[in-house]
Amino acid sequence: MLRIAVLGCGRIGRMHAANIAAHPRAELATVYDIDESSAETVAGRHGVRASGSADEVFASADVDAVLVATVTDTHADYIEKAVATGKPVLCEKPIDLSLERVNRCADAVLSKGVPIQIGFNRRFDPGHRAAWNAARSGEIGELHQVIITSRDPGMPPRAYYEAAGGLFRDMTIHDFDLARFMLGEEPEEVFAIGGRLIDPAMMEELNDYDSVMVVMRTKSGKQCHINNSRTSTYGYDQRVELLGSIGMVISGNRKPHELRHYSAARTEAAAPYLDFFIERYREAFDAEIDAFVTSVEKGEPPEVGFEDGRRALILAEAAIKSAVEGRFVKVSEIG
Amino acid sequence: MLRIAVLGCGRIGRMHAANIAAHPRAELATVYDIDESSAETVAGRHGVRASGSADEVFASADVDAVLVATVTDTHADYIEKAVATGKPVLCEKPIDLSLERVNRCADAVLSKGVPIQIGFNRRFDPGHRAAWNAARSGEIGELHQVIITSRDPGMPPRAYYEAAGGLFRDMTIHDFDLARFMLGEEPEEVFAIGGRLIDPAMMEELNDYDSVMVVMRTKSGKQCHINNSRTSTYGYDQRVELLGSIGMVISGNRKPHELRHYSAARTEAAAPYLDFFIERYREAFDAEIDAFVTSVEKGEPPEVGFEDGRRALILAEAAIKSAVEGRFVKVSEIG
Amino acid sequence: MLRIAVLGCGRIGRMHAANIAAHPRAELATVYDIDESSAETVAGRHGVRASGSADEVFASADVDAVLVATVTDTHADYIEKAVATGKPVLCEKPIDLSLERVNRCADAVLSKGVPIQIGFNRRFDPGHRAAWNAARSGEIGELHQVIITSRDPGMPPRAYYEAAGGLFRDMTIHDFDLARFMLGEEPEEVFAIGGRLIDPAMMEELNDYDSVMVVMRTKSGKQCHINNSRTSTYGYDQRVELLGSIGMVISGNRKPHELRHYSAARTEAAAPYLDFFIERYREAFDAEIDAFVTSVEKGEPPEVGFEDGRRALILAEAAIKSAVEGRFVKVSEIG
Amino acid sequence: MLRIAVLGCGRIGRMHAANIAAHPRAELATVYDIDESSAETVAGRHGVRASGSADEVFASADVDAVLVATVTDTHADYIEKAVATGKPVLCEKPIDLSLERVNRCADAVLSKGVPIQIGFNRRFDPGHRAAWNAARSGEIGELHQVIITSRDPGMPPRAYYEAAGGLFRDMTIHDFDLARFMLGEEPEEVFAIGGRLIDPAMMEELNDYDSVMVVMRTKSGKQCHINNSRTSTYGYDQRVELLGSIGMVISGNRKPHELRHYSAARTEAAAPYLDFFIERYREAFDAEIDAFVTSVEKGEPPEVGFEDGRRALILAEAAIKSAVEGRFVKVSEIG
Repeated sequence: MLRIAVLGCGRIGRMHAANIAAHPRAELATVYDIDESSAETVAGRHGVRASGSADEVFASADVDAVLVATVTDTHADYIEKAVATGKPVLCEKPIDLSLERVNRCADAVLSKGVPIQIGFNRRFDPGHRAAWNAARSGEIGELHQVIITSRDPGMPPRAYYEAAGGLFRDMTIHDFDLARFMLGEEPEEVFAIGGRLIDPAMMEELNDYDSVMVVMRTKSGKQCHINNSRTSTYGYDQRVELLGSIGMVISGNRKPHELRHYSAARTEAAAPYLDFFIERYREAFDAEIDAFVTSVEKGEPPEVGFEDGRRALILAEAAIKSAVEGRFVKVSEIG
Repeated sequence: MLRIAVLGCGRIGRMHAANIAAHPRAELATVYDIDESSAETVAGRHGVRASGSADEVFASADVDAVLVATVTDTHADYIEKAVATGKPVLCEKPIDLSLERVNRCADAVLSKGVPIQIGFNRRFDPGHRAAWNAARSGEIGELHQVIITSRDPGMPPRAYYEAAGGLFRDMTIHDFDLARFMLGEEPEEVFAIGGRLIDPAMMEELNDYDSVMVVMRTKSGKQCHINNSRTSTYGYDQRVELLGSIGMVISGNRKPHELRHYSAARTEAAAPYLDFFIERYREAFDAEIDAFVTSVEKGEPPEVGFEDGRRALILAEAAIKSAVEGRFVKVSEIG
Repeated sequence: MLRIAVLGCGRIGRMHAANIAAHPRAELATVYDIDESSAETVAGRHGVRASGSADEVFASADVDAVLVATVTDTHADYIEKAVATGKPVLCEKPIDLSLERVNRCADAVLSKGVPIQIGFNRRFDPGHRAAWNAARSGEIGELHQVIITSRDPGMPPRAYYEAAGGLFRDMTIHDFDLARFMLGEEPEEVFAIGGRLIDPAMMEELNDYDSVMVVMRTKSGKQCHINNSRTSTYGYDQRVELLGSIGMVISGNRKPHELRHYSAARTEAAAPYLDFFIERYREAFDAEIDAFVTSVEKGEPPEVGFEDGRRALILAEAAIKSAVEGRFVKVSEIG
Repeated sequence: MLRIAVLGCGRIGRMHAANIAAHPRAELATVYDIDESSAETVAGRHGVRASGSADEVFASADVDAVLVATVTDTHADYIEKAVATGKPVLCEKPIDLSLERVNRCADAVLSKGVPIQIGFNRRFDPGHRAAWNAARSGEIGELHQVIITSRDPGMPPRAYYEAAGGLFRDMTIHDFDLARFMLGEEPEEVFAIGGRLIDPAMMEELNDYDSVMVVMRTKSGKQCHINNSRTSTYGYDQRVELLGSIGMVISGNRKPHELRHYSAARTEAAAPYLDFFIERYREAFDAEIDAFVTSVEKGEPPEVGFEDGRRALILAEAAIKSAVEGRFVKVSEIG
């Protein structure tokens, strides 16, 4: 049994703790949160002890590995501590909002051989993964175009925005990773526009965007489009489309059930899509933990590693530069 | 060019006249209706002459074949006249509401070698035909179950009911034919219930039903269910499901277009289904004329002949007997 | 926390044990199985003690309630023991294969006021439940027709058949319960045919069926059709359709994910449906436990009680009689 | 009856001739083609006279209006002749491959008050039109994003490419028009990439593209993405998605029928999409003729006029400039 500690007992940390506890080959070792009562609640639910500090966790001989689900600006530090103490780590995205900090972290950790997995959960979604398999298996021939639609059901609160580092680093970063995964090669050029269509005043004030479109091109010429919005009122909209030379696959949205309504006004009407990431990506979060446990057990590098986290951030930086300067930005300009 | 006359210029006769006029190897020879002005209108639209009587049509040397779309109680007479004058005939269903009359007609016409096609249009629907092809091709293995859902969008006017001969002879008769077509063998036993759920008072008064369920079994044991209702407010509901030993096919409903609506209340909501038979079975009516023209050209028997019309009526009679007596009726009891 | 013991550690018992362990207001008290090692395995997984006998479980002061997932012929006995010891019981269907035994059990337990829930999990499926809600809310107007399609992905082994009591008592019994739930009133008449289409030799020998069709009618005239087959090679096929005077709802099948494939041969092609009941009805089994816990907590009668189990068996007996005698059987003839 | 002459008897001209002949308030006056025998064939099919020259058509007192379906480099000349002779004209897209020529044509014709409709048929597609109506009705709130997927089923022959003026002017031009229609305001900036993924050698040689992605932004900030490919092997792929502040609509693809296949490998598998434009946009081409007839009858300007043709070409020119220069091009740089 792999004994995993969870740092951070917010919504996503609580979910990870439960998934670890339910995993047949892992167990929840301990939890920690800066808010002691949050940690106690989660610890109590799973019958484990809450730790008094992150350092206590990293020092513990009863902890084999660490899952980091704390606020973003602690991620790089905790990755470094995990590596320093030889504990494999699964860290929520992003590694950091600063590419410079990520690069420093890379220098500190990459040569040490301690497994670092980044929490790009969407790669583990059964539908997205089946799309990837279809592309890899040759089913659709040569891959030509990737189209990713990724829209959140509603605007988060202002406080969230202030800490998130902007839509490209916070939200599109998932899509940049998914794009790299699906394309199977690195985007070389990025074009992006950022719009303020939902709440122009707040977006203006925060110098952020609520609606974006991105186009990327790889060295071999593969094309990728991403669109984001903070306003899919019909549920969390998460689609991936892969067009190849002899076929196409589309990974579509998930509904809570399959009831269809028929009336004089509408036919085949379904419920709104699963909302939000914890429900929509339930299987993905499970599979992510499973992949982490398996890679530690086998001593193999994680499927989604530190460099994936860094590359996604670089694409985000390129997109920001493109949106500001209105031109096709070469990824090599960034890092 | 096969010169086809149309008898009857009601809604369905007008449609057939236009389809004949548009067919590349047929032309509309003349039209006749008991209501002279209807006939004149249709004749004018297609630049042909209206005939003064049905007899004039049958006697005309400029008429190669006849399509009968008049009221039901003229069908058998006109089939006999067509055969007597050697003109191939495509006659709307049913042949007659009386099985005895149908049998007399059979005696008069069947040995004469003149092609008689019955207007069971649904066999020619692209979706239903593709289902049939799937069953015939072995795609679904051995056919086990056939399920036919057939619901009209709304109750017809009382006058229609009074002439229609009851739901089983008027509406289910299409499904009995489709069942025989799909099953590929004759039903031997019929069970049916008839309900008065939509307009109980009128149904009671007319001794008719507005909602029915049927179960049939063939000699080899294949099973078939039919359900009918006069109240599919969401559009004309026409589905055929074939379950086989290694697969299934479902021929579904047709929409006017493929727009889907997404909101906080519903996703993937489409428009009501095509309503009514002239829209829903547009391609089928076209293909029915084409099959008639082709069979006459080739001197081959029609795909849906007189005996098909008779067998469907026999099943309707068996269903009525079953609904009244509450038992599984052997088709051999009827005819 | 409601301390629930699980009797029976086969596939479905193991699943229930895990669901109980994961429930926030319940805990797994102990488990028992006639096969000691099965019990030990499940007990070990959840960190509980395996009991040495069912009697030990019923006698235990540390057990608040009992879930019965043993072989069918123990169900009635265990229900009686649970009631005798005052422990609420959730018992898998069917109560017994003999209506006479069920009636004796009823006499012994019904007046005692101990909650008895029967494991008709499908009532708790989110899609089926949403269909029921749509009917109850008036969304589809007056309910006219209920159509239930229920097909198992493949033939079970011969040993299963020998103990199962025949398809109507084993498989259709779920659909009889679902029909009663959806109709909102009792079927008064039942017609059924049983076919031997998949494995005629074995079915003949066991005097059983592999393919059936049922039609039922309630006092107010509502109509219900059920079709069953042991051969839905495309996955577990579980659909419920409710037609009302102003609309329709269909609760459809569940897929493992939403990937759609497009090629020169096919478009919109999805994966086979979830197979089998543990996957397809995952949420339903969860919700069933939750409903049991809630009803015990609140002291309210279970949503699906003993009488529901008895009524479903009566419908199965009526269907068998109908299939044998070839007539519309009144439910009042049975019980 | 509006007497319409058809210039050009290729595939699309023949289709228009048949649609005019079938229109209740129009008739086919005459046809002309540089290939006399093509003209004779079409004329014979509809019982009209073939004209010996385009000039003869424009001079004829028996021709009320002209439909131009000849090769692109004749369009502007014929529009000018139609206007000079006072005959309303429905001209296939594009007006010309040269913006300079289009502008000269504009100078010659726009002040004359003769109706000029451009053949952007997709605006008349029932699904796309219903999407537009949803946006206009407020159903989806404020429009934020438009996503157009437009893929041809296969590469046309080399000769077609050589005359077509490049993918942006030939194929994307339809999508530029559709984008303007859906956005309800003018795109101000255009970004595009052009790829050579299907037949790199031929594309290189012809300096053309087979796969493109476009992003556009309007003055108010609305965002639009277009993707094109010449290789949708699964049928003609024509989708329009409109995301608004409170909802979304998607106009999807059309199938030849609604048969769905279920097997151990796939469920809900449908036939390939309708292929190609004449089948897919059958209703749109009909409605386009109807709109033309109606606008002439009412003396109202056509729904899709000369300026729409010019604006779409300007967007194509902007896209080409963007693809070549790798930057976000202001539409005002073009014209």
